[in-house]
Amino acid sequence: MNLIQRLDKGPIICAEGYLFAMERRGYLSAGAFVPEVVIEHPEVVTQLHREFIRAGSDVVQAFTYYGHREKLRIIGKEHLLEKLQKNALQIARYAREEFPELDLMVCGDVANTNVYDPNDSSSLKQCQKMYEEQIQWAKEAGVDFVIAETINWVEEMKIALKTIKQEKLIAVTNFAIPRGDLTRDGYTPSDACKMMEDEGADVVGLNCYRGPKMTMKFLDEIKDKVTCHVSALPVPYRTTEKEPGFLNIIDEGCDCIPGGNAFPVALDNLFCNRYEMGEFAKECSEKNINFIGICCGAEPHHVREMSMAIGKKPISMKYAPDMSKHFHHGNDSTLRDINKKITY
Amino acid sequence: MNLIQRLDKGPIICAEGYLFAMERRGYLSAGAFVPEVVIEHPEVVTQLHREFIRAGSDVVQAFTYYGHREKLRIIGKEHLLEKLQKNALQIARYAREEFPELDLMVCGDVANTNVYDPNDSSSLKQCQKMYEEQIQWAKEAGVDFVIAETINWVEEMKIALKTIKQEKLIAVTNFAIPRGDLTRDGYTPSDACKMMEDEGADVVGLNCYRGPKMTMKFLDEIKDKVTCHVSALPVPYRTTEKEPGFLNIIDEGCDCIPGGNAFPVALDNLFCNRYEMGEFAKECSEKNINFIGICCGAEPHHVREMSMAIGKKPISMKYAPDMSKHFHHGNDSTLRDINKKITY
Amino acid sequence: MNLIQRLDKGPIICAEGYLFAMERRGYLSAGAFVPEVVIEHPEVVTQLHREFIRAGSDVVQAFTYYGHREKLRIIGKEHLLEKLQKNALQIARYAREEFPELDLMVCGDVANTNVYDPNDSSSLKQCQKMYEEQIQWAKEAGVDFVIAETINWVEEMKIALKTIKQEKLIAVTNFAIPRGDLTRDGYTPSDACKMMEDEGADVVGLNCYRGPKMTMKFLDEIKDKVTCHVSALPVPYRTTEKEPGFLNIIDEGCDCIPGGNAFPVALDNLFCNRYEMGEFAKECSEKNINFIGICCGAEPHHVREMSMAIGKKPISMKYAPDMSKHFHHGNDSTLRDINKKITY
Amino acid sequence: MNLIQRLDKGPIICAEGYLFAMERRGYLSAGAFVPEVVIEHPEVVTQLHREFIRAGSDVVQAFTYYGHREKLRIIGKEHLLEKLQKNALQIARYAREEFPELDLMVCGDVANTNVYDPNDSSSLKQCQKMYEEQIQWAKEAGVDFVIAETINWVEEMKIALKTIKQEKLIAVTNFAIPRGDLTRDGYTPSDACKMMEDEGADVVGLNCYRGPKMTMKFLDEIKDKVTCHVSALPVPYRTTEKEPGFLNIIDEGCDCIPGGNAFPVALDNLFCNRYEMGEFAKECSEKNINFIGICCGAEPHHVREMSMAIGKKPISMKYAPDMSKHFHHGNDSTLRDINKKITY
Repeated sequence: MNLIQRLDKGPIICAEGYLFAMERRGYLSAGAFVPEVVIEHPEVVTQLHREFIRAGSDVVQAFTYYGHREKLRIIGKEHLLEKLQKNALQIARYAREEFPELDLMVCGDVANTNVYDPNDSSSLKQCQKMYEEQIQWAKEAGVDFVIAETINWVEEMKIALKTIKQEKLIAVTNFAIPRGDLTRDGYTPSDACKMMEDEGADVVGLNCYRGPKMTMKFLDEIKDKVTCHVSALPVPYRTTEKEPGFLNIIDEGCDCIPGGNAFPVALDNLFCNRYEMGEFAKECSEKNINFIGICCGAEPHHVREMSMAIGKKPISMKYAPDMSKHFHHGNDSTLRDINKKITY
Repeated sequence: MNLIQRLDKGPIICAEGYLFAMERRGYLSAGAFVPEVVIEHPEVVTQLHREFIRAGSDVVQAFTYYGHREKLRIIGKEHLLEKLQKNALQIARYAREEFPELDLMVCGDVANTNVYDPNDSSSLKQCQKMYEEQIQWAKEAGVDFVIAETINWVEEMKIALKTIKQEKLIAVTNFAIPRGDLTRDGYTPSDACKMMEDEGADVVGLNCYRGPKMTMKFLDEIKDKVTCHVSALPVPYRTTEKEPGFLNIIDEGCDCIPGGNAFPVALDNLFCNRYEMGEFAKECSEKNINFIGICCGAEPHHVREMSMAIGKKPISMKYAPDMSKHFHHGNDSTLRDINKKITY
Repeated sequence: MNLIQRLDKGPIICAEGYLFAMERRGYLSAGAFVPEVVIEHPEVVTQLHREFIRAGSDVVQAFTYYGHREKLRIIGKEHLLEKLQKNALQIARYAREEFPELDLMVCGDVANTNVYDPNDSSSLKQCQKMYEEQIQWAKEAGVDFVIAETINWVEEMKIALKTIKQEKLIAVTNFAIPRGDLTRDGYTPSDACKMMEDEGADVVGLNCYRGPKMTMKFLDEIKDKVTCHVSALPVPYRTTEKEPGFLNIIDEGCDCIPGGNAFPVALDNLFCNRYEMGEFAKECSEKNINFIGICCGAEPHHVREMSMAIGKKPISMKYAPDMSKHFHHGNDSTLRDINKKITY
Repeated sequence: MNLIQRLDKGPIICAEGYLFAMERRGYLSAGAFVPEVVIEHPEVVTQLHREFIRAGSDVVQAFTYYGHREKLRIIGKEHLLEKLQKNALQIARYAREEFPELDLMVCGDVANTNVYDPNDSSSLKQCQKMYEEQIQWAKEAGVDFVIAETINWVEEMKIALKTIKQEKLIAVTNFAIPRGDLTRDGYTPSDACKMMEDEGADVVGLNCYRGPKMTMKFLDEIKDKVTCHVSALPVPYRTTEKEPGFLNIIDEGCDCIPGGNAFPVALDNLFCNRYEMGEFAKECSEKNINFIGICCGAEPHHVREMSMAIGKKPISMKYAPDMSKHFHHGNDSTLRDINKKITY
């Protein structure tokens, strides 16, 4: 079954967030955010794939995000582009192969190029070339589909989508919506998604920037407007109406952050817990939004709860919490009463 | 140089928090909190050691915490005790050997037995036996020192300390202080620490339960009262005067946590960020509290910032944040202006 | 192009021998010979697929051989049947996807059931059920064709073939010929093959039991008698007119083999080298026997030589022997003469 | 316990033969025999380490053999030297870490430089530099000991040994003995070994070139002459008094080998089976030759039998042959009689 057939049968989980997770674990630098780890320490990427798969992700996303030409240019490593992309695709495939019983999908992705400028026509060609090379490598690697994501211009997304479709691949287009609740070229999320469906996208929706609540607010309208499947991959942070995205968010409880901006490396105290992410997944599922995921910030415990919340039984469910055996909170009769009597 | 000589020369970093990190990654169950992963997936524990070492931990703590007889009993696996303990020690030694240039120390640990009961004299013997077997294995493995930690009874700590000293090992004794700011047998943190120094402890201090601020409040008094080195390993959570510990803490921003208690698996939104942990480390260092660490909840990004805050240059500093190259926040002149003009 | 169209254009290579290779590498037990490794260590099977593919195998044979109901019964693991079969098929498909540039085929197989008994009519039904379930899973997995192999009863082969054809799959039927040069029900190899062609087999031929010479001796007659494509997959062992098969063969040079029989785990000194297998492949090709392979005992070096012998350029040809650079045997002028002067 | 203490307690197994195994699997080229696979496909080397460890090797030998400056020069890749050496050492360490319960040792090695020439004094300095750099990297990687091996000049071995000892590492020196039963500078194996003991070697003995019988013939005399531990690592090929080594051996049963020489890629029909290697290990053990191994040609099935022959219980013993369940040879009463009645 391909992605569409899978989504026709019910929801799937797609774990993202590789950049942030690898940054926290110490294998790439915040700012440039280039996935150099896929060259330098592929075994660490493999391990993260494993954790997400065990937690219930049905998709193994090749860690090509931000491994594109513009990102490599800014750190002076464009010569590594092809190796990085191909390594990432291979690592993803190898990770899938460790779990033959799971019927996982591997996907490639393309993302915001950071060079698109509607007023600079040369930038459009540059985008297209960037997308072409990445999608070509993804196709050669035999991916099941390609996600175009974290893009906030409808016109940039069109270029990405057209390039995916030229290769006859299944396309998921996910917009990241800035503060004004519109794409940067002024479309509502639902209009932008509808335009992508009309251009041939197989799945349309949102990812990144916003937490579960600020993402959910657009989903009904998108679902109403399009006939194809809808995707939703928020970041696991508590963004609000006042601060709907995480790119310029402040953490009021802390004055020790250099520059004052919690993004990207001091977001810890804004984290959603696993249950909030589980609720998001469940609500999506009830609304027949079937491509459910999580973006920057995700850890395996979030993913597992999302998977379990929609009724799946991921491998690491074996280690789901069971407080009955906790020395203080537990109710197992063989635990000592003396540790339960006080409030610590 | 042994631990004491190292501390005489200046601060060291000790990363803990293996249980929580492995729980989030999906390799052990919250509640029982038994480190089964050291038997089932040693390579995953090795990877976490690597991350902490790369982030600047000077100590590789064998992941024997809660791999003790009482914990294994409650999950019906006492027969795995010796294998689990020995594997954990071996994994720690191997991780050290990966970094021969770093002069790392390996430590064993013993912890709250959860069976100690001052009113049950048989429990004292049980504690002692539990400590004896663990410390014996640690000694055979050639550890540099042993930490007795997360203990909140002075009398239980005495048993642990005595057992370590009988094996002629260097001992660090770390109390976890409950809500009333006293050990469970009624001693202030500084009195408890002083008693341990008098009984032969080489390093005395605090770990777990409390975040950096609620730990810091006791440190001056401890430092004043003892002459030996002092240790401090808070949890990276924002606990408060009202809720000084994390064992019974509530997250006001979320009503979807089963049972309502944020501990232990919904603490995400109470996290400290890396800079708060860095500030804690710096303040300790300025006060000549030289055994500086972090407990349950720690991720490598916290550890790296603590290491850098006291002037060290850990391996993963290579990947410290550098926002100058961020497409939106960066000031690199080759980045496109169009991505900087708006607030996302 | 399907298998037949491929064979119409020229020879293809099909590497088999998974059981023996995995036994030598320590992942399954000789005797029972059940491919448990596909459940316990899928990554090891994947690696063997990779090696065979890199060496030039055009076919990725799912490692379902002897993962059937009777084999699982004898080790008390019938409950693993479906998982084992499906894993094996998935592993094969994933391995193919690693090499999208190669146009590989994936095949399923059914084999000697070990329960067929012409004098026990109930055994025929049992065979049929065993074949049905395996072929059903193979079909669901989208295999390009199914091989029925190592069968030495014409009647048993008929059941297998009929079952494959009921699923409208392309069928290859390979007999294993015992010592008397006849199937166990008394047909010559060429008559048996002709009967299969008449029953609808797409490719007919021989596999297993016999080395290249003892297999080759039947091929001309088979080729003469049938009009469809012919297959030949000998074992890489030097069997002789006196001992045409390897099931009861003796190694005269060794008296330390328990039981005295070289089969199955002391056949080492009877091995064919790569060049003998290359010659076999070349001779087949010259005779328009186009489904060329190798069975129990195969290692990747045999397969590569077979592929190269028929004019192909497999991936691992990059590492074909080049003795010019050998310190003793080489003729590179920069090598030291002193190492060439003596006979070691 | 270090190597010497381990040997004092009894025999250990050391699996070698990485070059030949990787050549057969298609990851490096015979002739140049450079272990490029440690850079290009480290996961394949890891897998071979795993197989040897599971089979009972107590030593994980970093695959640095022939990854030296002269070998890289001949293929024009000297710039890869440091990366290759360091990768190999890291791969070995990582493999060990997967098996914390086994107490494995990691060793480095240095080998025949192929540049040593007694008549060219500049070659001595060249040797020394080659040994120095390799041993330095091995030391930095924290190896437990270093093997100097496959060397057939006493004077070259002295340089290797001296360099190892300057780094205060434990040294094993293994000579490869050419056809005339003497080192190339004319010493008997036992005299050569004795000289090395006198120069400070911790273990002395033989490796490579010769099969088990042609190696065994020297061992009594060596054992008699030295007081330190003795090592023996033959190749698993049936070499004879007439052809004691494998470098210039002929396979009489085959006329299709290019050049006519069975070495190095057509040795298959000269293989020893597992039981012969088991007998060799057992005999060594009975003679208190405690560093027992196997060299070029080894596969995991040989190693496992050697380990079991000296009374050990390696992991893959779980899959040791058990012919009772074989459809034809087995005696399990539930097997069908019809398959046992004939001789195939």
